[in-house]
Amino acid sequence: MAETQARLEIEDLQRNLREVQELLLRQKLVEDLVHRQEMPKHGLVEQLVHKQHLTELRAKLEGLHPADVAFILDALPLDERLAVWELVKADRDGEILLEVSDAVRESLIASMDSRELVAATETLEADEIADIAPDLPEGVIEEVVQSLPAEERERLRAALSYPEGSVGALMDFDHVSVREDVMLEAATRYLRRLDELPGHTDQLFVIGRDQELKGTLPLARLIVTDLHLEVSSVVIPESVRFSPEDRAEDAANAFERYDLVSAPVVDERGRLIGRLTVDAVVDYIRQKSAESQLAEAGLAHEEDIFAPVLNSFKNRWSWLAINLVTAFIASRVIGAFEDSIARLVALAALMPIVAGIGGNSGNQTTTMIVRALALGQIQGSYWTKLLGKEIGVALLNGAVWGTLLGGMAYAFYGNVALGGVMALAMILNLVLAAIMGVAIPWLRARFGKDPAAGSSVLITACTDSGGFFIFLGLATLFLM
Amino acid sequence: MAETQARLEIEDLQRNLREVQELLLRQKLVEDLVHRQEMPKHGLVEQLVHKQHLTELRAKLEGLHPADVAFILDALPLDERLAVWELVKADRDGEILLEVSDAVRESLIASMDSRELVAATETLEADEIADIAPDLPEGVIEEVVQSLPAEERERLRAALSYPEGSVGALMDFDHVSVREDVMLEAATRYLRRLDELPGHTDQLFVIGRDQELKGTLPLARLIVTDLHLEVSSVVIPESVRFSPEDRAEDAANAFERYDLVSAPVVDERGRLIGRLTVDAVVDYIRQKSAESQLAEAGLAHEEDIFAPVLNSFKNRWSWLAINLVTAFIASRVIGAFEDSIARLVALAALMPIVAGIGGNSGNQTTTMIVRALALGQIQGSYWTKLLGKEIGVALLNGAVWGTLLGGMAYAFYGNVALGGVMALAMILNLVLAAIMGVAIPWLRARFGKDPAAGSSVLITACTDSGGFFIFLGLATLFLM
Repeated sequence: MAETQARLEIEDLQRNLREVQELLLRQKLVEDLVHRQEMPKHGLVEQLVHKQHLTELRAKLEGLHPADVAFILDALPLDERLAVWELVKADRDGEILLEVSDAVRESLIASMDSRELVAATETLEADEIADIAPDLPEGVIEEVVQSLPAEERERLRAALSYPEGSVGALMDFDHVSVREDVMLEAATRYLRRLDELPGHTDQLFVIGRDQELKGTLPLARLIVTDLHLEVSSVVIPESVRFSPEDRAEDAANAFERYDLVSAPVVDERGRLIGRLTVDAVVDYIRQKSAESQLAEAGLAHEEDIFAPVLNSFKNRWSWLAINLVTAFIASRVIGAFEDSIARLVALAALMPIVAGIGGNSGNQTTTMIVRALALGQIQGSYWTKLLGKEIGVALLNGAVWGTLLGGMAYAFYGNVALGGVMALAMILNLVLAAIMGVAIPWLRARFGKDPAAGSSVLITACTDSGGFFIFLGLATLFLM
Repeated sequence: MAETQARLEIEDLQRNLREVQELLLRQKLVEDLVHRQEMPKHGLVEQLVHKQHLTELRAKLEGLHPADVAFILDALPLDERLAVWELVKADRDGEILLEVSDAVRESLIASMDSRELVAATETLEADEIADIAPDLPEGVIEEVVQSLPAEERERLRAALSYPEGSVGALMDFDHVSVREDVMLEAATRYLRRLDELPGHTDQLFVIGRDQELKGTLPLARLIVTDLHLEVSSVVIPESVRFSPEDRAEDAANAFERYDLVSAPVVDERGRLIGRLTVDAVVDYIRQKSAESQLAEAGLAHEEDIFAPVLNSFKNRWSWLAINLVTAFIASRVIGAFEDSIARLVALAALMPIVAGIGGNSGNQTTTMIVRALALGQIQGSYWTKLLGKEIGVALLNGAVWGTLLGGMAYAFYGNVALGGVMALAMILNLVLAAIMGVAIPWLRARFGKDPAAGSSVLITACTDSGGFFIFLGLATLFLM
């Protein structure tokens, strides 16, 4: 822990970043001069100047919180990033690896040999090792497991066994527990023997003879309570407790609803095995929100902004490929009506409007429903009610925008029937968008899938192909 | 505060919701029977049955945490929601209003008269009143301000004066401060005189003679420290402090980076005026993430899922209108090439593919850049580097997908030149998407606007109109 290091605001972080860049740049200038032989290679002056910059940079990094070093590493292009990483003291490697983004962590780990990785990992606690384990080579984890004391090894095994997105994957083992049958005075004496309480200790966990959780004792209560009482007389028995198999999402909602700082995690027999803290929950919430933002735009996972072109291509190709397939299907729908388009070429100009507005409207419906589902607000009996409402909104939208666009089509092409077809197609495609906008998340939720993932692509596929089919079909029926 | 009430997990919440619905349903059945005159109106039996259900429901609600009552209110359709709201004890109205979603709060406030609103608001603290003030009628706020004691009134005035999205709008006044020149023993005695410390008190704020902040003293340290020391000898001087004008987003980042539970807020002269706590930060993060999710899909703000059709229409129409304008422009671009389409109708079927893939790819670029900007990672000198990289990815994408689609166009239409035009248009539109994908957030950030808002619509507008223009233009040049 680097609790005493200065903590900075965003302007300070950016100033740090600029200073580091400047030092790197100056050092690079010296190296370039040497390279171009305008300075004697390995000469005394060069060595001195070089060394001075490195010392200055190292001192700068030394004074920073691990999270702030991570900020700089995240923001630097690969070569400068590795130059800075070289200068960071080895005993802080582990903590910094925890803080950088996934993509940057990969690039840092790739630059370390297994001896360095084992050394860095050994400085971490079991739950932290589990967090970075997926990025580490198999052999390194083996070696780290061997080197841990028995208790830590058991904890690491446990932490590694819980799937991503579960409470077990987020919990730590830093809780402080007291027996319910001791006096508060004895409990306080016990606490004083500890050097400092672990971070986020806002409450002690009160346990019985067999480690079973009896309740909690907030520090804020302990401090204001008469010490001549037994722990059991001030314990708060009613409190949120999680099991390691609980969904992290539900735990995050509980932290938000009840404004928690920490909560106990118990096994199936009610025995205390760990705790969940608000900092892990905040990280989880941030990460989920970033992931869903990225997934919606069709990025497989977070991208190092300075990743090589090929890495970026790999991260983005799969959704482009899906999009290509759906676009191709839509294209074949249009292809089926080529005769009609050849006879009335205005159709080609008008059809993207029908498809586009449908997609936009369907996305609005799905987004609203996905959000209500995530909050657990939609009950079984409400689906038909919701569908009815969305169809109502679609009809109203259709009447407004359909009339407007029908009028414009008539104004541009002087064809009343074409205006009518445009308006009707608009209404029908908006109703289709409403139905699919409700049906897609409903179906995905029913089959236990994440209702958000890919919903935008699916909706747009329906409203594109559907919109072209409805518009060109109606045109073929009524105008040919 | 309802600290002692049971706290529930998501399954419990949903079971509660079902129970409330069942009680409402049973009551409604009785009312229907009366209405259909199958039971004597105002008869003894009806009154008893009715009363019994209401009593049961009221008891049920009484036992719930305000956040859990809010969950039920959020999830019920309007009429059932108001029926439940009627039954909630008036002294909890204020707390529950704080917890419900914005859209539902509006519907609840609309059902209350100003006397009820004043009563509900008076149970809250200054920073809480400021949170719901925007939804309250002018007269109610006036009356509440008059009724507050002088100190609270000043705080409310201050809290109301900070703009949304600032630290001032999130801070509260519940901090506990101690003077630096007292002994820890005296400080502890002072704390014991308080009934219970305010929620999220993980540290005391240490102040000097003139209220100026000297540092912090974590409870976890106070508990393990020898009490015969002066506060000044154990204070931690280096800690994050905010000013009320700081951006809430930056404060949230600092809470995440440094795993904070609370942090002091000081005025321009360094005097302690309030604090920011992690629960307010979690709420803020959740709300921001929900807002950006909604805004991306073109919803103006959070929607009550059971809102009347007209309300939903109002919430959604503005982005549909913008979309209509951009779709109309794209349509006019196509209109300009109607002669070419009339001569080679395959163009109509192929053009949406070029436009669609470009939009998707441009959105990937923008999303990545918006995220890096939000994290403060992009420095001035990096823009050209980023642009170069994105154009590289676009060229690689163009080569892969362009070749594939060009080949497919050739396979379907047996026209080599058409395949070539398709491939070239694909490459050019992907490069356009990359340039606009970088330029749009860059420009918005430069002019101090939120780089995310509306970026998806703007990108899609460029790649649609641009894609149609490039593809049809090339076709007219080379195939006509």
